[in-house]
Amino acid sequence: MRKTEHHKMEYVFETIKAITKTNPKVEQIKDLPAIHYLGQSEQVIPILSGGGSGHEPAHFGYVGEGMLSAAISGPIFVPPCASDILETIRFINRGKGVFVIIKNFEADLEEFSQAIEQARQEGIPIKYIVSHDDISVETSNFKIRHRGVAGTVLLHKIIGQAALEGASLDELEQLGLSLTTSMATLGVASKSATILGQHQPVFDIEEGYISFGIGIHGEPGYRTMPFVSMEHLANELVNKLKMKLRWQDGEAFILLINNLGGSSKMEELLFTNAVMEFLALDDLQLPFIKTGHLITSLDMAGLSVTLCRVKDSRWIDYLKHKTDARAW
Amino acid sequence: MRKTEHHKMEYVFETIKAITKTNPKVEQIKDLPAIHYLGQSEQVIPILSGGGSGHEPAHFGYVGEGMLSAAISGPIFVPPCASDILETIRFINRGKGVFVIIKNFEADLEEFSQAIEQARQEGIPIKYIVSHDDISVETSNFKIRHRGVAGTVLLHKIIGQAALEGASLDELEQLGLSLTTSMATLGVASKSATILGQHQPVFDIEEGYISFGIGIHGEPGYRTMPFVSMEHLANELVNKLKMKLRWQDGEAFILLINNLGGSSKMEELLFTNAVMEFLALDDLQLPFIKTGHLITSLDMAGLSVTLCRVKDSRWIDYLKHKTDARAW
Repeated sequence: MRKTEHHKMEYVFETIKAITKTNPKVEQIKDLPAIHYLGQSEQVIPILSGGGSGHEPAHFGYVGEGMLSAAISGPIFVPPCASDILETIRFINRGKGVFVIIKNFEADLEEFSQAIEQARQEGIPIKYIVSHDDISVETSNFKIRHRGVAGTVLLHKIIGQAALEGASLDELEQLGLSLTTSMATLGVASKSATILGQHQPVFDIEEGYISFGIGIHGEPGYRTMPFVSMEHLANELVNKLKMKLRWQDGEAFILLINNLGGSSKMEELLFTNAVMEFLALDDLQLPFIKTGHLITSLDMAGLSVTLCRVKDSRWIDYLKHKTDARAW
Repeated sequence: MRKTEHHKMEYVFETIKAITKTNPKVEQIKDLPAIHYLGQSEQVIPILSGGGSGHEPAHFGYVGEGMLSAAISGPIFVPPCASDILETIRFINRGKGVFVIIKNFEADLEEFSQAIEQARQEGIPIKYIVSHDDISVETSNFKIRHRGVAGTVLLHKIIGQAALEGASLDELEQLGLSLTTSMATLGVASKSATILGQHQPVFDIEEGYISFGIGIHGEPGYRTMPFVSMEHLANELVNKLKMKLRWQDGEAFILLINNLGGSSKMEELLFTNAVMEFLALDDLQLPFIKTGHLITSLDMAGLSVTLCRVKDSRWIDYLKHKTDARAW
């Protein structure tokens, strides 16, 4: 079991200080790189999510009523270690078990599954879901990468609200499966993330070029080409999403536009408008739209589009329900 | 009277499309580069603000109940023209007059004051306030620049809520004067803004260096030095703010931390923590804290601190009152 080296966690503990000082409804769990919601009802299944840091406001910003009960972070782009996850699970379990939301990355799965296995051995009921909304392709083998990216926040909100309204562990698992098989995300970037304290970007993109299918851990994309216009970008992404989701005219979708960190708010709006104009061509209904810094990759200049088919109209109610999670 | 060249406004009209499509509570005013709140009560003095674009979510994102009744934008970093401002004033006036919030920049004052003068000649009662919270100094003459920057959003929220609760034009003016003389802002940047469609940054900062006292229109700062640490940065800024605001131990202040666009959310949190640790040394009370992308400068990597002395405890009530303005 990997133990996280403490010096790499300095930033995480400082972000926890900022968050707990500015939000009286959350508190650090012991000396762990984790926070929990102080208003959590004992009648509700607690929801845990987490992963590497560098994706702020994920995941700490989504701790609140009807969203996450607790969140845990590792060093930048590195998941928390299994022993810290296990301690967090023990802390938030009130006898009804814990539901865990994991992003599909090998290292994350390794740490979270170790912790889940151990917790189950201790008699704590655990169910989990792995988000894998990214539909970009690996250039070496043309396989879809299925990483867990921006769509993960939809799981936080919809599953969190379902738990608050009394769903059981099994019902949350079913809901999670239904959601993860209904959504797809594709992103582009014009500038790599820069790791704090290092001057070199994680990968190079030539000035004026964009890279399709970038990842939230600074992974480069599958194709690089000159930037033409927001319309061109939106057209490319919407076409790829349509090939995957194969929608009919007039279907209802949830739309997320995610700013990966360093794109201007103006570009975020221009891109949102361009994407919506293409979706309007197929008369898609968009009963819920959210734009902003949802799951970032430090200061990467980039944007992603997530579409989630509305299989159940309650999903929209869950999304629109108010929460005191600061980043929603 | 300057007329805005239409081709420079393309981005503004596209951002208006994105905003009106995603927020059913606001609507474009005629074919103007302006939006207004559809829930505006006729009993309430309408509040107007605006300026150049490139500062998103300002000012369109602050249109909503208890904030701005309308907002108007010009091209990137250029104010709207007087004739468009005048038409907007005429449109939102319901007989009780209009209160206008202007950021202190020469070009903004010129356009807004022409529009105000003309509206008054037409018999529309107008009062206004000019925000000037920036305390950075001009290197050529050592004078404080007093530009209107991030603190302006405090005017939007506090004055907007006061209007909703029935304040008269004169009372709003008094409130505005009391607020603008209670606050100060100082910012730093590590990377200049890049104007959309241009590859060259507005000014140069060497990699690993930071510039103190940068402006929201991409103006360079008054001093450039190597980046040492967030603590060092926070210490420098808090000391300068203290020299200006001359607080006593234990006084109450409103704290805003503004992300100028391209800084990562993690840096925003680390900076917030560092600033709060220095303020804690003087036992300052912080009854209201807000962090995020409040008034940006496109994708400039930078952060600013605003402190506003709480002269009246109702200011905190006004700030905490809920609003449907999307960006608050």
